[in-house]
Amino acid sequence: MVRIAILMAMKNEARTLLQSLDLRQQKQPFRSGVPFELFQGRFAKAQLSVVVSGTDPEFHVDNVATVPAALMTYLAIEKCNPDLVLNAGTAGGFGGRGCEIGDVYLGSGTFCFHDRRIPLPGFDRYGIGRYSCYDTSSLAAELHLKTGIISTGNSLDLQGKDLQLILENQAVIKDMEAAAIAWVCRSLSVPMIAVKAITDLVDEGAPTETQFLQNFHLAVKNLQIKTIELLQHLQKIKDC
Amino acid sequence: MVRIAILMAMKNEARTLLQSLDLRQQKQPFRSGVPFELFQGRFAKAQLSVVVSGTDPEFHVDNVATVPAALMTYLAIEKCNPDLVLNAGTAGGFGGRGCEIGDVYLGSGTFCFHDRRIPLPGFDRYGIGRYSCYDTSSLAAELHLKTGIISTGNSLDLQGKDLQLILENQAVIKDMEAAAIAWVCRSLSVPMIAVKAITDLVDEGAPTETQFLQNFHLAVKNLQIKTIELLQHLQKIKDC
Repeated sequence: MVRIAILMAMKNEARTLLQSLDLRQQKQPFRSGVPFELFQGRFAKAQLSVVVSGTDPEFHVDNVATVPAALMTYLAIEKCNPDLVLNAGTAGGFGGRGCEIGDVYLGSGTFCFHDRRIPLPGFDRYGIGRYSCYDTSSLAAELHLKTGIISTGNSLDLQGKDLQLILENQAVIKDMEAAAIAWVCRSLSVPMIAVKAITDLVDEGAPTETQFLQNFHLAVKNLQIKTIELLQHLQKIKDC
Repeated sequence: MVRIAILMAMKNEARTLLQSLDLRQQKQPFRSGVPFELFQGRFAKAQLSVVVSGTDPEFHVDNVATVPAALMTYLAIEKCNPDLVLNAGTAGGFGGRGCEIGDVYLGSGTFCFHDRRIPLPGFDRYGIGRYSCYDTSSLAAELHLKTGIISTGNSLDLQGKDLQLILENQAVIKDMEAAAIAWVCRSLSVPMIAVKAITDLVDEGAPTETQFLQNFHLAVKNLQIKTIELLQHLQKIKDC
């Protein structure tokens, strides 16, 4: 039976998906103080774990961005021993590269950072990452999903150099967790894919935060639909 | 006996300190694939663990910046159960705020990020962090160390908005790991302090990378001296 761990940064991204799955929340699944939540159960032939980042006790918001994402990935792998890690969430996209609001993309399998500028020999490439975690081309074709390179940074907005690096990374999607998750998965040799629903076009229209709030509901609905389709497909795979 | 875990991002930062301590490197101390190195032994009355980030297998450089730092902190705490985490390393400083090359600062105990801009209610403050991990004022006075707020980002260089946020954070020191380590320590309720030796003045002189390479040796030497002084003081403390 294939074991799949879905990692999600925001409870509001996960809620619709969790409602459509028959999973049980595990009580205190991690060491005391670790904020992550774990939901587990069966999905057809798959053993499914959904890990959500949880709420910061001081700021009362989700533990988004790369620092919690890295730890969440390690603990999900340690706890659930997945054959595949799936990072599902919302993200920004480039209108100029064909993204539309509400689109759901499958990450092309290459994960980069755009906010780790370290201009020292070797460290420059380390900063970008460009981890190859899984070849998603046939999966995308079968599920009729758009694909693109995902570039990760800790900010919701973009600065000049961020944009330049995203373009150099040839990314279509901008998110806040995928490359951190990919780093851990690469280290521990666990295959990883990402599915991202577009809330905002980073190169068009209103500021990211305005578009994000406006389109969040639509993106989350589409994310749920496509994640379920993806799971229906993946549960048939013996070795991911 | 007090247990202290020292976390260091670069092997070249750690080498001088490790040479002056009588520690034993542990073989494969963490799960296979985890790159971090662990050195353990006694320092006077303290049980000492030094964890170094290790080398990236693809890029052949140290695993610097916040993503490895977060995971390293968790695993150090899980493995060594320290009473106190000490993040020791090199950093940039503000000449305009009194920093000089080679100075060794004790972090004031407040740790912020300057590259997590999330302009949504609650998330904006979450992005900055501003974790209070330990009151270092009496320690700094006894050891005659300068103190200042440390602000953390994933890049060695600075962009316009990074600088603005560092100033808003009232930081004197700019590093690449401390706030990520502080986030994990705060979550797991482990006291944490940071000691940082200044390689470059971010508001004066040549680009950071040039100053960094020029002054690294001096900074590392001073870091070793002050870290030993700090350990001599800390080993007498029963409860950190």
